[in-house]
Parts: sequence; structure tokens; C-alpha cells
Amino acid sequence: MEGDFLEKLKSLEIPTCLRVCCGTDGSVTFLLEIMTRKPVSVKTESQYVVKADKEMAELLGVEEGSEVNDRTVRLYAGDTVLVHARSLSPLERMPQTMRDQLMRADIPIGRILRSHNLETRRDMVELEILEGEPTFDGIPILSRTYKIVHHNHVLMWINERFPIDERWKL
Amino acid sequence: MEGDFLEKLKSLEIPTCLRVCCGTDGSVTFLLEIMTRKPVSVKTESQYVVKADKEMAELLGVEEGSEVNDRTVRLYAGDTVLVHARSLSPLERMPQTMRDQLMRADIPIGRILRSHNLETRRDMVELEILEGEPTFDGIPILSRTYKIVHHNHVLMWINERFPIDERWKL
Repeated sequence: MEGDFLEKLKSLEIPTCLRVCCGTDGSVTFLLEIMTRKPVSVKTESQYVVKADKEMAELLGVEEGSEVNDRTVRLYAGDTVLVHARSLSPLERMPQTMRDQLMRADIPIGRILRSHNLETRRDMVELEILEGEPTFDGIPILSRTYKIVHHNHVLMWINERFPIDERWKL
Repeated sequence: MEGDFLEKLKSLEIPTCLRVCCGTDGSVTFLLEIMTRKPVSVKTESQYVVKADKEMAELLGVEEGSEVNDRTVRLYAGDTVLVHARSLSPLERMPQTMRDQLMRADIPIGRILRSHNLETRRDMVELEILEGEPTFDGIPILSRTYKIVHHNHVLMWINERFPIDERWKL
């Protein structure tokens, strides 16, 4: 997958900053902050705990019925929304303090991981262009899915959606 | 340090792509590849094994006299050199296959880590602008130092130097 992901990303005719954000194997929040030089904020659209159904359990490698935090947010740099992100996080794999941060407040995931000094890797799963989606009012979307892996287990499954337009000419 | 690092980086009047490369907490090689859409190659300037002196031992958290791989390379995107990087890696902390890759061939460190599926974090140490250095024939340099941490030990200490000029207008 990694090789495919890279080749696909390189082939897209999109602004460089968008390609970089969608391709990074580091923190997206951090990248947005140094790219735009504006404070990056998170606005939570929804956040609740669900019991994993069969599909979700397979995705995350947990038992069916395990508790999973399902969070959807938008990331802003200043007043501009740049990313729509949904994360699925098995609660049983999180230290209590991390659970609290994730469920309580508008803290970006990159900052949560960083504040816990976690060693992780990010495994890319999928990259695709979506047309006619309502996420950004019909603007074409670059969508990527990846997993944040810690101690060889999936700590978080993340889908990020980036609008493909001029806002990335930074 | 992380907060200082970020604020300092945001304050610099430099091309966005340079700021992003110098600020990422992910793989620089990977970032250069998606940024330039060109194949990234490594040219090794020097590579040898040394015994850690007192200063190096403190930097890496190893015993004095431990074997350390000292490697200096330049990273190219196509024909353009973009980064000068020196790495210090305690050999005792590396799996044998990683040692072989590091010592044998012109393989970027990001790719070596990735191929071993290692979970790591990157801790920023220093960011500074250097003038009148010979690294890029006197062109001002943005220099950053960080540590790649694995199992709470320093796996690699890295200093990267980026020329501050027009080559980053990507």
C-alpha cells in the first residue's frame, strides 16, 4: 500500500500544500500550523461512544461490542476550514488521561498524542478523490484513511477529507 | 521545547515548503518526494563507526566507548540538493538488518524506519539560522536537530541543514 499511496499522490494535479497535508506521515495539525502560520483549532461536530459492530471490530482489531470513541471534527487555520476528520478509537487501548482529552474537549489528535509522548507509526490504508459529496458543499474532496499504530495495535482509525480548491495556495 | 520550536519556525520569513520540511514530525524523505514529485535519492558523504566520547554518550544516552554510526548524507530531489543531514546512531539499539541498511547503502533513514515498521516519536531539540557556513557554499542555512526515540531510548540523533533560497519555491 505505501508505494501505491505515494505514486497515486504524486500523480495528482493539486496544490503542493494539499498534497503535502494529505501525504504526511506526521501530525496534520502541526503541519497546518507551520504551513499557514495561523493557530489551528478543532471544532467538534459529533463525539460519542459506540459499541463496535462486526465491521468496526475488524477494522480496529477489537472484539465486537467493545467501546469505541467515534469523533467527527473540522480543523480550522484561523477562520478557514481545511480538513474534515473522523476518528474511531477503541477506548480499551487508551490511557485514562487520553480518553478524557479525546472525549472532553476540542483538542487535536496530534496534540493529544504528543502530550502523552507516545511512540507510534501511521499506516496508510486508502487514498481517493470523491465528487459530489456534501462534506464541503459539493466541492471535490481528497479523502485518505490511515491507522495510528501503537504497540502493534490500532490506536486510532482516521479518515481525513480535504476540499480540493484554492484555499491550499499557501 | 516543542512550543518554542513551533513559535520560532512560524516567525521565520522563508518559503512555505522549507518551513514545512524543517518543521515536520514525520519523514523528511517522504515529504520531499510528495512535495517535489521527483524521486528522492541519498548521496553518502561519509559513513563510519566511532566510539562515543563523553559528549556523544550524553547526547545519545549510551555508555562512553559504545559504538555509534556517524553518517553524513545529502538528499536530492531529482538533480537538486535540498538537505544536508548528519545522523548519529548507537549500533547497540538497532536490529541487525537495520544496521546493515544504515551502513551499507544510500538508503534514506525514513525508508529504513518504515521498512522495519518501527513505532517512534521525534523530539525536537534545536532550530537555528546559520550564516557563512560552508555546507551550502555560504548560503544561509536553517538547521534543526531532533531525536528519533524508540522504546524511550534515542535511536538516532539527527541534524538537518536546509539552504535558505529559491529552490524551495515548489
